[in-house]
Amino acid sequence: MQNLAFVGLGAMGAPMAKCLLSAGFGLRVFDVREENMRPLADVGATAAGSPREAAEGADALVLMVVDAGQTEAALFGENGAAEALAPGAAVVAMSTVGPEPVRELDRRLSERQLRLLDAPVSGGVARAGRGDLLIMAGGPDDLFGELRPALDAMGSTVVLCGPSAGDGQSVKLVNQLLCGIHIAAAGEALAYAQALGLDPGSVYETIRHGAAGSFMLEDRGRRMLDREFLPPKSALDIFVKDMGLVREAARGSGFATPLSDAAHRLYEMGASLGFGREDDSGILRVFEEGMGPSQET
Amino acid sequence: MQNLAFVGLGAMGAPMAKCLLSAGFGLRVFDVREENMRPLADVGATAAGSPREAAEGADALVLMVVDAGQTEAALFGENGAAEALAPGAAVVAMSTVGPEPVRELDRRLSERQLRLLDAPVSGGVARAGRGDLLIMAGGPDDLFGELRPALDAMGSTVVLCGPSAGDGQSVKLVNQLLCGIHIAAAGEALAYAQALGLDPGSVYETIRHGAAGSFMLEDRGRRMLDREFLPPKSALDIFVKDMGLVREAARGSGFATPLSDAAHRLYEMGASLGFGREDDSGILRVFEEGMGPSQET
Repeated sequence: MQNLAFVGLGAMGAPMAKCLLSAGFGLRVFDVREENMRPLADVGATAAGSPREAAEGADALVLMVVDAGQTEAALFGENGAAEALAPGAAVVAMSTVGPEPVRELDRRLSERQLRLLDAPVSGGVARAGRGDLLIMAGGPDDLFGELRPALDAMGSTVVLCGPSAGDGQSVKLVNQLLCGIHIAAAGEALAYAQALGLDPGSVYETIRHGAAGSFMLEDRGRRMLDREFLPPKSALDIFVKDMGLVREAARGSGFATPLSDAAHRLYEMGASLGFGREDDSGILRVFEEGMGPSQET
Repeated sequence: MQNLAFVGLGAMGAPMAKCLLSAGFGLRVFDVREENMRPLADVGATAAGSPREAAEGADALVLMVVDAGQTEAALFGENGAAEALAPGAAVVAMSTVGPEPVRELDRRLSERQLRLLDAPVSGGVARAGRGDLLIMAGGPDDLFGELRPALDAMGSTVVLCGPSAGDGQSVKLVNQLLCGIHIAAAGEALAYAQALGLDPGSVYETIRHGAAGSFMLEDRGRRMLDREFLPPKSALDIFVKDMGLVREAARGSGFATPLSDAAHRLYEMGASLGFGREDDSGILRVFEEGMGPSQET
């Protein structure tokens, strides 16, 4: 697995691809925006004109696009990669798309004797740049082993969560459920402090090291206090999508998610207020601007 | 402020009173349950027959009872402490009762020339035993200074949150808002993992050190996985009360708290299922047993 193709060079994909180059992998890259390919070409990658062209001769194709629709298009759309991959080659699906679309992908790829590793990530752009992501994989042991050097180039914690495509996605959804609720909770807490007449910054300093602490209170709470909503480090729209995926998988299992439901509604309100492409810490403003007093008693 | 009275020797109050004794304060104690006073009397406290008897000769009275009703009764009920306290003496209200009841208390005590320090705590029974609590005080600087040695005996982080009675309560409510949501989120996440066919213990190990992490995922998540619901380290009923106080103060400020609302409903469901006096980590079972699939789409 020395020759890799990489499709999707957005905010997360570009630094991940750079980590693969730095680790010595041969890399052919494609992105629908030509300008996204140039920084990679400058450091040794070969820019391709389509996913199909990128995939030619590749041992494995890494996909880091936005959603299930783009994943499908990159593989099976016009000039898609699937036709160019040789039997036995691997596809590494790293976008968060939910377990069911990945299982369907696995079925379609296996018809072509292509092997799928489900491998969504957590960690954000800064950690992606340091090769410091958490990678949650799902798939056969042997395939995971073959791809391990590439995964280790991008992540510092690389876990095989289960033997099937979809297992990595499911763990990612549990992760997103907590992240999405914790960010929204930090916003509710700091806006509430303000509403009670307190100084939110002092409250943050008083409580963040105790039982109320979370990674997201620490990280996004700081950005909320600094009102650092642009440029986005992680766009609010991502949680509109991901909390939707969390709820969709819950419904598929007959499981109720009242906190995720409430958080998802807050992200949707944030997007409808025009904050979707700004930082997710901007959820604070939904509490400040977007909501009237509760209708309930 | 060398001679103290202490009323309310429950799971939190007893170890706090012991810390005061260890620090060399003279201590007269009262609890409605006589058996709660014996362990304190064994280590040097004087057991009293009523709050009034405990308060006689005290420079300050510390109250660590359950709620606003018990606070009112201990001070102004039959054989209440207020009549026995000399003008200028202090009352330290450490129970979580919400800002408005403490402001009302402050008005009533000042009519008798008694001084109130609002000083709710966070940290749980184990930290109370080590004198390691977070104490969130509200009140005048000079009173805070006079009481500081006693507060330092009980807490490792002692913060004056504002100049008025109620300011400590308000910060405590922000703290409880986050704690209450984070515990419920841990329950939703681990039950969701199970519903998706994952092993919750493996998911916990995979994600707890990353962006999904929180003090409560770490602490209560562990108890959920071990199903350690009895004896309670922190009773679920406390969050039925405290999330109610969070929402009450929000309504008073015309502020909406959708995540706290959802979490409060989950604690109420837990209590109605009979889990109120068990550990709050038992909220997990509301997701497992108490809820059908979501009615919403």
